[in-house]
Amino acid sequence: MQALRTALAQINPTVGDLTANSELIVDWTSRAAQEGAQVVVFPEMALTGYPVEDLALRPEFAHASRDALRDLADALDRAGCGDVVAVVGYLDRDAVGSRNSAAVLFRGDVVSRYDKHALPTYRVFDELRYFAPGTRLSITEVNDVRLGIVVCEDIWKPGGPVPAYAAAGVDVLLCLNASPFERGKAEVRLSVVQRRAAEAGVPVVYANLVGGQDELVFDGGSMVVAADGAILGRAPAFTEHLLCVDLDVSDARRPDGGPPPGWSIDRNTVPDLLVRGWDRLPRSVAEPSDDLASTWAALVTGLRDYVHKNGFASVALGLSGGIDSAVVAAIAVDALGAESVYGVAMPSQYSSDHSLADANDLASRTGLHFGIESIVDMVRSVTDQLGLSGVAEENVQARCRGIVLMALSNSAGHLILATGNKSELAVGYSTIYGDAVGGFAPIKDVPKSMVWELARWRNDAAVGRGEVPPIPEASIDKPPSAELRPDQLDTDSLPEYDRLDAILFRYVDCDQGEDDIVAAGFDPVDVADIVAKVDAAEHKRRQYPIGTKVTSKAFGRDRRMPITDGRRRV
Amino acid sequence: MQALRTALAQINPTVGDLTANSELIVDWTSRAAQEGAQVVVFPEMALTGYPVEDLALRPEFAHASRDALRDLADALDRAGCGDVVAVVGYLDRDAVGSRNSAAVLFRGDVVSRYDKHALPTYRVFDELRYFAPGTRLSITEVNDVRLGIVVCEDIWKPGGPVPAYAAAGVDVLLCLNASPFERGKAEVRLSVVQRRAAEAGVPVVYANLVGGQDELVFDGGSMVVAADGAILGRAPAFTEHLLCVDLDVSDARRPDGGPPPGWSIDRNTVPDLLVRGWDRLPRSVAEPSDDLASTWAALVTGLRDYVHKNGFASVALGLSGGIDSAVVAAIAVDALGAESVYGVAMPSQYSSDHSLADANDLASRTGLHFGIESIVDMVRSVTDQLGLSGVAEENVQARCRGIVLMALSNSAGHLILATGNKSELAVGYSTIYGDAVGGFAPIKDVPKSMVWELARWRNDAAVGRGEVPPIPEASIDKPPSAELRPDQLDTDSLPEYDRLDAILFRYVDCDQGEDDIVAAGFDPVDVADIVAKVDAAEHKRRQYPIGTKVTSKAFGRDRRMPITDGRRRV
Repeated sequence: MQALRTALAQINPTVGDLTANSELIVDWTSRAAQEGAQVVVFPEMALTGYPVEDLALRPEFAHASRDALRDLADALDRAGCGDVVAVVGYLDRDAVGSRNSAAVLFRGDVVSRYDKHALPTYRVFDELRYFAPGTRLSITEVNDVRLGIVVCEDIWKPGGPVPAYAAAGVDVLLCLNASPFERGKAEVRLSVVQRRAAEAGVPVVYANLVGGQDELVFDGGSMVVAADGAILGRAPAFTEHLLCVDLDVSDARRPDGGPPPGWSIDRNTVPDLLVRGWDRLPRSVAEPSDDLASTWAALVTGLRDYVHKNGFASVALGLSGGIDSAVVAAIAVDALGAESVYGVAMPSQYSSDHSLADANDLASRTGLHFGIESIVDMVRSVTDQLGLSGVAEENVQARCRGIVLMALSNSAGHLILATGNKSELAVGYSTIYGDAVGGFAPIKDVPKSMVWELARWRNDAAVGRGEVPPIPEASIDKPPSAELRPDQLDTDSLPEYDRLDAILFRYVDCDQGEDDIVAAGFDPVDVADIVAKVDAAEHKRRQYPIGTKVTSKAFGRDRRMPITDGRRRV
Repeated sequence: MQALRTALAQINPTVGDLTANSELIVDWTSRAAQEGAQVVVFPEMALTGYPVEDLALRPEFAHASRDALRDLADALDRAGCGDVVAVVGYLDRDAVGSRNSAAVLFRGDVVSRYDKHALPTYRVFDELRYFAPGTRLSITEVNDVRLGIVVCEDIWKPGGPVPAYAAAGVDVLLCLNASPFERGKAEVRLSVVQRRAAEAGVPVVYANLVGGQDELVFDGGSMVVAADGAILGRAPAFTEHLLCVDLDVSDARRPDGGPPPGWSIDRNTVPDLLVRGWDRLPRSVAEPSDDLASTWAALVTGLRDYVHKNGFASVALGLSGGIDSAVVAAIAVDALGAESVYGVAMPSQYSSDHSLADANDLASRTGLHFGIESIVDMVRSVTDQLGLSGVAEENVQARCRGIVLMALSNSAGHLILATGNKSELAVGYSTIYGDAVGGFAPIKDVPKSMVWELARWRNDAAVGRGEVPPIPEASIDKPPSAELRPDQLDTDSLPEYDRLDAILFRYVDCDQGEDDIVAAGFDPVDVADIVAKVDAAEHKRRQYPIGTKVTSKAFGRDRRMPITDGRRRV
């Protein structure tokens, strides 16, 4: 048996920041060296961050990435960890086009390169817009162990480089990933890795990114899976982590094969590496979190990284006393600490007493900064001058609140958080330039019924830790209202949220047609009404702030609908 | 010589409206029949409109498109034009996926189908997200003339179906297109068609869409080009048109060939069609417009179709007295008529006297509805209560104007037009939720220096027709100012617009890096400052309304940059 100590560096780079990302890679390679690893595997495009979007098409950025890779090889050597074989994802560019690439760095050199073959172009991915596919395998031999490299989508479908590597003869597959979070995806990912490990007959080392990038959050959960499906190691989710796994590789080495049709092979052998006297590592297999815990962690991570990576020191939001703003505030406090969160209640003439009381309660539970700014006079100034009533008057209230929040942002530099949820965004139940104001919308992909679940889950978690539950029970229990006119309730114009969310899930997330939804037992009038509302609200969604994707289909890059859409009768 | 009368139906369908689009196709096929055409060619995806974006992924929509195609074949027959061979673009779907397809309809039947082979996935196009590529040629013989079908991108690069058709033996290539306008593209398109016609050795019948769909405008300019490059017919741009061309086809028919490797052939022959006694048609070759005229027409078309296809009866905009709002107003009046355009001047304490006078002058020249709504009291109400000054106070002015416009929209149903230009949008020189308010932004892709050119061009055109020039000379001549503080000028914080636009063109449209731009002779401090401003304004652009693309790279679906972008130091 030959054993190889492999480190998976689950890091959180920043898109575009080649300098900081290089430093991160040197730092984590040093840690891997200290752990006695012979190989360290970084995620997909760790050097550039992921997704770089149209930066991939800018020649100067691709060249900067190539240059940064060469500099990185040197820097690793200078930092004394050049003897660790480092496998690093980066952006390359050649005569054919840009490439989503991985490089093998060793003793100051780029020993080998692999270009991603399978380029996902669906849902949130646009890789055929950016990259030319590779057709060359990269096999690097370390201490008689042949390492093959694949990148993310390469393992999601049968065929492609995995069977090609199996035919060529490898002992371990290293898979570099930038696989974003969505609910239920961790399980799917594991089964995909298990399937490919079985097909290739070798262990798969799966290193995933962690952290937020605009609407995507990468959850990590890096792992090593044996050919028989056993989990040899797994990193915790939503945190940077170095996972070290001792890989046993059979002595009965299968012979090297030639490249299968359509593939060429880049073969390299690095000099035998010292195996520093080591005790075998115990297996480290982090348990996955449940649905609500991981969704909460994704929301916290997405907000925290958006704030920090964009250089904000603080956030501000309107506190209505309702469930949405309470949950967003709790996420913000978990992400940034109460001292960085500013809540402001902005009562109008229609605000109920409990609104202010509940907002105040939230502030005392969480410790966030709390202020009150009445909009009564501003609204009167506008509506009197313009002679407004009805919806126009309702919207002026929301828009005056928007002005107050943006003035706070302009004065104090806060990032403003919009507090709308996915159900509202779906049916257009928000005021554009009013409550839709903000740079980030933490729960825009959370259906309203799940907002309640998350609130209860978060409070229970606090109780379990002996802490004060952050969200006032009153905010959870009271019937939702926009409070833009007397005695208004959401259910005046919408079905109950459970029913609404069930229909929205089918129409939006599952792309079901009206007929299919009705056939599943929903009321045809409800369905027609909701479908019409969703279609008509596309123009509002286009101007809504971005927010963290957690469901299988988020509004934004994940669902790209025309605004002008003749399916709706105008 | 065999002659075939071919009609190109340059129509303006609406995305998603299968019923209206079917009626349009029946109507134009009837016209083609009246003109004695044996063949009528419609644009790419004429039945569904283009681009349908994620509608292509909704099974119920793809099935509705298939059903509509069958119904259309019947409807053509019932309308008495079933004997015209109609070639219609539509959305299909099979076990492999959705298809960007063309069908040959004849006497109530779908005689043949072709699936687009080359799927553009760059710039504004995402076709590999949506469609599976076809590998089957469609050859239909009409009166001994073999017609091959290709779709748009199929002819843009060498290889693909064009040489395959040439090998299989065809006499004419029918090319269905949805090729959007951009400055200078008509010339490029012509040379592409000429190149393919020469390579295939047969005439190419190029039918293009016309009309606006969200940020795209299709300019038409349908044409027939002979193998020797001669233009046998060309439709005018930016208008629906039926172009009829009598095609001579050599008697020396080359033999049918087999399908080249990787292709199969669907061969069909329709019964010999009566050639109704006809005189040979004279050549009809519309002259192309110059750059400014065609850009103006694109802007007018884009706005008109957005308004009409989304069911608005009128538009409203703020009139500052400046050049941007004057040009947008003139576009709106050309698109919709003065009776559908509402302008409102919203003076603040910093507005100069000439602002109101120039806005008033614009209103009298164009005849649009004009109102004045002072924001002085509203602004004071907000700034006094919140104790604002500086940028925060400046932004309150812009945001109060946004509130006034949105109140107008809520009360009267106007679509609000944002008046920002591409230069401002590039450097973030606008107030989000303030002057950025609107459902459509007609000149968002027009650089400021071109706004002036268009204004002068439009006024000269009026003079040439003996009409009153719509745009006040004072609005053209005065130095631009946001008038948010006393004596403010744009040049206080920006370089002169000519220099700014030259740098922006290189950085944004051409993807040049900072070093390249400096190497081209621009001041390094200017370049660094502008590049930093462009990168920092991405979050504002994301929430900006859509508007018509006219340049080679528009903000929006054409340029997809991350907001979180570590290239800028935060």
